[in-house]
Amino acid sequence: MAEKSFYSYRVDPQDVDFTLRATLASLGSSILNTAGLDAYGKGFGVDVLNAENHSWVLSRMAIEIDRRPEQYTDYTVATWISDYGRVLSTRNFTLTDASGHEFGRAVTQWAMIDLTTRSAVDLSWVGREHDDAVVPVPPPTDRPRKIREVVPTLQTEHRVVYSDIDFNRHVNTMRYIEMMLDLLPVERLTQEAAVRLDIHFLKECRLGQTLRVGCEERDSSALFEISGDGVTAAVRASVEWTPRS
Amino acid sequence: MAEKSFYSYRVDPQDVDFTLRATLASLGSSILNTAGLDAYGKGFGVDVLNAENHSWVLSRMAIEIDRRPEQYTDYTVATWISDYGRVLSTRNFTLTDASGHEFGRAVTQWAMIDLTTRSAVDLSWVGREHDDAVVPVPPPTDRPRKIREVVPTLQTEHRVVYSDIDFNRHVNTMRYIEMMLDLLPVERLTQEAAVRLDIHFLKECRLGQTLRVGCEERDSSALFEISGDGVTAAVRASVEWTPRS
Repeated sequence: MAEKSFYSYRVDPQDVDFTLRATLASLGSSILNTAGLDAYGKGFGVDVLNAENHSWVLSRMAIEIDRRPEQYTDYTVATWISDYGRVLSTRNFTLTDASGHEFGRAVTQWAMIDLTTRSAVDLSWVGREHDDAVVPVPPPTDRPRKIREVVPTLQTEHRVVYSDIDFNRHVNTMRYIEMMLDLLPVERLTQEAAVRLDIHFLKECRLGQTLRVGCEERDSSALFEISGDGVTAAVRASVEWTPRS
Repeated sequence: MAEKSFYSYRVDPQDVDFTLRATLASLGSSILNTAGLDAYGKGFGVDVLNAENHSWVLSRMAIEIDRRPEQYTDYTVATWISDYGRVLSTRNFTLTDASGHEFGRAVTQWAMIDLTTRSAVDLSWVGREHDDAVVPVPPPTDRPRKIREVVPTLQTEHRVVYSDIDFNRHVNTMRYIEMMLDLLPVERLTQEAAVRLDIHFLKECRLGQTLRVGCEERDSSALFEISGDGVTAAVRASVEWTPRS
């Protein structure tokens, strides 16, 4: 039976903000990086899928960070796939510090797309072929929540440029997170609070598009919507803070 | 006598563009990260300096990349300080792939600033106290070149947001590089050519400022200027491509 896999990271100077703690985006980046590495190592990475004109696409993600780790500290990301459906596979993560204390966790749901049609394909065959990669441990927290409607109180535009795009030629997940969080006051982003981020990817955004990024600020949360054509949502997200007791 | 230090990196999914090769910004990020780590490990990192209200600030940098390494390949960054002046110290780098072939190099010049006045301080004492950290090996290529005048043919604006700033509360070097390169056609950025980037930091840019980013496109090079107040240059840079033979 498969077991969780473990990947080591260090909070490098490039990962911190001026509080000298890892940014939410850098922790998210380690989480997604772990997903890519683990799939690659197990033989169902983007490299193998691309050969069949397929690719993994992140559909939904929930990240919870209780405490942002400090610069130069080490942390471990554990990852495991808990289930494969016909459309989505669920990959989970826990983040623990050097003393073994869990300070964060994530649940991600991935679709497989056909690179020509850009639409989802049935991924049951991955479940069959790689059944031994499933670890029978449930997700460490609630799966990504749906965000239904966002009524922006703050808005900005962002033209998609080269440095925003990833190996799939669409906007990289961390850049979406950054362009949303950048709408908020710095004090909110650097406060000492536990945070949960839920994000849904509904449509791909591509080079040259001008995105509209909207934010609905609430008391201890914020909702976001990004649109590539000004009408339909491409990405929706929510961020919720819980002051530490 | 001191020797070069070596740091290991891997080209992760987050580091590549759609050519599946490391971006120039991600290689630059590894280079600067190596500088921070090495100074930290040797006892003259930003952590120690901050306690005395000082910090390192990158003044000039030259990076040459002959060939961008592919996703999931390992590379090593070697670093050494070749000299300390009164105002600038020179830290050098070479990048080699897993088979020991050098595919890139960099020369960086650092000033030490007083965090209150934000102006440079005499760093002779570092040279005296850490004389044993100097490695008598000259820089691996020409030191950063001066860029005197830029007449923009392309221009954009960029408002400085949270995700742009670093531990010093000013715009992070890689973001400057990204905002400049993003002005160029994608075909130019992804071509298979050796590239040399020279960059000078003249003034700090800070949160909330709106920067003007200008580019003067030439045949096989491009010059850049970023200004925070619309008058004086904050950053100047040049990028030069040499088709591989």
